[in-house]
Amino acid sequence: MTLHDSTPDFIPQFNKDGLIGAIAQDYITKDVLMMAWMNEDALQKTIETGEVHYWSRSRQELWHKGATSGATQIVKEIRIDCDQDALLLIIEQKNTDACHTGRPSCFYRKMENGTLIFDPEGL
Amino acid sequence: MTLHDSTPDFIPQFNKDGLIGAIAQDYITKDVLMMAWMNEDALQKTIETGEVHYWSRSRQELWHKGATSGATQIVKEIRIDCDQDALLLIIEQKNTDACHTGRPSCFYRKMENGTLIFDPEGL
Repeated sequence: MTLHDSTPDFIPQFNKDGLIGAIAQDYITKDVLMMAWMNEDALQKTIETGEVHYWSRSRQELWHKGATSGATQIVKEIRIDCDQDALLLIIEQKNTDACHTGRPSCFYRKMENGTLIFDPEGL
Repeated sequence: MTLHDSTPDFIPQFNKDGLIGAIAQDYITKDVLMMAWMNEDALQKTIETGEVHYWSRSRQELWHKGATSGATQIVKEIRIDCDQDALLLIIEQKNTDACHTGRPSCFYRKMENGTLIFDPEGL
């Protein structure tokens, strides 16, 4: 046991780039919808507003998920793992699609015999 | 659309440390059990053996999950996200506990009013 895994204190461990991984999971279907990153500001705004904010590594800016598309993510619960370096966001996905490709989940492909099969309904 | 999100080619994007994030999800309950990291070797061994191998960042070594504890993870399906920089492992967790703290999932705490509540059954 360590301090991080046995404490009730919320002490998220941001990596050397100031980021923590965040997994978004649908609160009803339990499908894993996406994985993205938060910096301290994004996490704070997520907690304050109840809508998920990430840090866009490609655009290097705060990313209020769905702000333009309407595909917002409403926070139902925020969980953190044992060593406090990963977040699990239990969310309600608005507009049904979490993925920018127009699919409900970003994990729409599965590996079979070294190649990827498109299987968006199979989660 | 980009090459990464529309191709059937499996081209995992390892980060500058040579790692890709991997989320383990129980194949029956759909609980998210843990998130850890793989390097190319760990991913290859996972595919070859059907048992999950991670890269331990703390120990800096290949980590055959459960090799000593018996809490192995049997691969049912490997999925990858749109930009191919995150893996979703659908697995069967042996010995019931994924977490080193003796809990089924590493995400056993949820945030409420700025503090963490221990709620291992609430996933």
